[in-house]
Amino acid sequence: MQELIEKGQKAKKAAFILGKTSTLIKNSVLSDAADLLLKNEKTIVAENEKDLKAAKENNIKGALLDRLTLTKARIESMADGLKQIAALDDPVGEMLSMKKRPNGLHIGQRRVPMGVIGIIYEARPNVTADAFGLCLKTGNATILRGGKEAIHSNKAVVKVLQQALTSNNLPMESVQLVENTTRDSAVAMMKLNEYLDILIPRGGAGLIKAVVENSSVPVIETGVGNCHVYVDSFADKKMAKEIVVNSKTHRPGVCNAAESLLIHKDIAYEQVPLICQALADQDVEIRGDEEVCRLFPSAVKATEEDWGREYLDYIISVKIVDSVNEAINHVNTYGTNHSEVIVTENYSHAQQFLDQVDAAAVYVNASSRFTDGMEFGFGAEIGISTQKLHARGPMGLKELTSSKYIIYGNGQIR
Amino acid sequence: MQELIEKGQKAKKAAFILGKTSTLIKNSVLSDAADLLLKNEKTIVAENEKDLKAAKENNIKGALLDRLTLTKARIESMADGLKQIAALDDPVGEMLSMKKRPNGLHIGQRRVPMGVIGIIYEARPNVTADAFGLCLKTGNATILRGGKEAIHSNKAVVKVLQQALTSNNLPMESVQLVENTTRDSAVAMMKLNEYLDILIPRGGAGLIKAVVENSSVPVIETGVGNCHVYVDSFADKKMAKEIVVNSKTHRPGVCNAAESLLIHKDIAYEQVPLICQALADQDVEIRGDEEVCRLFPSAVKATEEDWGREYLDYIISVKIVDSVNEAINHVNTYGTNHSEVIVTENYSHAQQFLDQVDAAAVYVNASSRFTDGMEFGFGAEIGISTQKLHARGPMGLKELTSSKYIIYGNGQIR
Repeated sequence: MQELIEKGQKAKKAAFILGKTSTLIKNSVLSDAADLLLKNEKTIVAENEKDLKAAKENNIKGALLDRLTLTKARIESMADGLKQIAALDDPVGEMLSMKKRPNGLHIGQRRVPMGVIGIIYEARPNVTADAFGLCLKTGNATILRGGKEAIHSNKAVVKVLQQALTSNNLPMESVQLVENTTRDSAVAMMKLNEYLDILIPRGGAGLIKAVVENSSVPVIETGVGNCHVYVDSFADKKMAKEIVVNSKTHRPGVCNAAESLLIHKDIAYEQVPLICQALADQDVEIRGDEEVCRLFPSAVKATEEDWGREYLDYIISVKIVDSVNEAINHVNTYGTNHSEVIVTENYSHAQQFLDQVDAAAVYVNASSRFTDGMEFGFGAEIGISTQKLHARGPMGLKELTSSKYIIYGNGQIR
Repeated sequence: MQELIEKGQKAKKAAFILGKTSTLIKNSVLSDAADLLLKNEKTIVAENEKDLKAAKENNIKGALLDRLTLTKARIESMADGLKQIAALDDPVGEMLSMKKRPNGLHIGQRRVPMGVIGIIYEARPNVTADAFGLCLKTGNATILRGGKEAIHSNKAVVKVLQQALTSNNLPMESVQLVENTTRDSAVAMMKLNEYLDILIPRGGAGLIKAVVENSSVPVIETGVGNCHVYVDSFADKKMAKEIVVNSKTHRPGVCNAAESLLIHKDIAYEQVPLICQALADQDVEIRGDEEVCRLFPSAVKATEEDWGREYLDYIISVKIVDSVNEAINHVNTYGTNHSEVIVTENYSHAQQFLDQVDAAAVYVNASSRFTDGMEFGFGAEIGISTQKLHARGPMGLKELTSSKYIIYGNGQIR
């Protein structure tokens, strides 16, 4: 697709410039972009209105419409986000190691930008500024391909970001928006190996699956979370209830929310009614196995399919297990390797769960909701990786960088 | 494909066991496998004879036939390789970081195995033992899909490796050989996302390209090297000649050999004849630009295509450039981001080349031939990554691992 090839060529040139741009200049761009977002708030909101009008005509409503909406407060939040990124340390240039070899070569590993990063996302215009900020700070050029429903909003935001770039004498092609929002442009982006160094999908399970299956550009898979809380027979009871309720109900629509509860059989008689009632009090629907339904009669019978579901809603599956081994096996079978929790006071069970559960983040006695770049102290995040290559768990600035070996010699040959 | 699904399921179970196996046991397997290779040398050579007979009937010869051949010495070398891997530190379990958050959570990042690693390679039976050793040491199960020409040799080697596993009470499915060697099995492996955590192609440019383009399993791209040596106007002349000759002729058939020479115009009149003659003395064919052909009349005229070629042979392209900027631009345009060399005594030129050349390894005043796991001090290597995701440059044991966050709480909720 011609648009993407041209954007790829320009992005590659921009990436070369960004790679040698100082942190001071990059921070200046971020700060200017924040100011310009505020200054152009009315224009951006007006462009967003066009998207909202079209969306309503297409019968888009609820959470989707809400995510598409830009208000003064949301634009302020986008600007704040850019300022926060400006305040973070720049990881580029850090030496990860340097050693002297027996032949006198000094071999160092230096952190460098990825180059050109592609982001495919849905109709969330706030991602536009956010992704730009993280990529720019790490010296990367960005090609953004947002959802078609947000095209006017995205154009308005990108225009402002590009103003901040040019006013700092950086190429405006450091961030580019793909204007063709047909399916074809997404597919073309997934095959743009010549220009894209990595591709990050941000959005729902369907989008991520499509990108993983079709992209020949290296992908970082983010986000699907069928997260479990396992309440061990040795759990502190008050803590168990609090962690289950928090993991499920603090924000049910996000990937680190709990979707499934496992309870040890020895405490099921007492704990199933208590914990299920606490969940029900928060309007959570319980889908239990046979024994759970017996102990908590307002539970619905769970099907095999329920164990693998990411509800993203006020629903939880509940199962009674015989042992920590069964809990670990269940989690490794049905989980999505995102965030998994054990509540226990038993040392060996805690260690076994940490060792044997295969997930990006494994918790003892804490809510699954902590799997988040801010909570981990990264200051910002581009997403949560559920793959094992390159990055696993919340991804901050470092995860948007690569490395290269630099070797100082004085005439060494083999 | 049923064979691959079954092998995938078994590999996943084996990976769970390997993930909790101690370094002592893993080393014992490696040591036993080395002994068993030597003990079964005659059987392996006899099976290899079948492959060689078939290969000769199919008119395979030269380097291909040589790589397929197993001799007593080569089996000893495979065994030595496994013993060397046993002697290396086990990276699994290493804590990469551990910090306490303001809310009291202790968040640590622990190095863990990848899980199941797929390797697709050509008719080189020594890769079978080598890949197994590296993957086992890092706690990974391995599915090997070697070239069809080596099927008897590979079966014999894998049988021995599996004996070493079972005699240490580990599942024999820790290493499995795909017995279907049709194109279909390679394609099926590239889509085996449910069971494979990563896929590493080892072989020529065609194989790697096919895997990168078709795999939905995360891939580590290895190896194509169109490497350059740039001789700056400030180069030490003796050093320049030695580094060029070594980079080109020490082992022309490998990816870190130089394929192209750039010479600054200010020293071209003197250096082009000297360096080209030194190369010609080693039977290297010179393909030069117009000026090079004038200065060294036995050079052949290079075409545009030559600048992008990985000859893997006694051929080099030679071009005269106006400046270090032009050299960097040429390298970034035609190179494959593998290994790039500047020869110079000028401080600023050296730093600029290190900063601005986009490659896995960038050298000042040393041969490109050092891009190698052993030379970098890793003790072993699974290949040289030319992508930017996860690993870049020579990959040792660490690059076969992932990480997971382990979080110690005491009841934290959000």
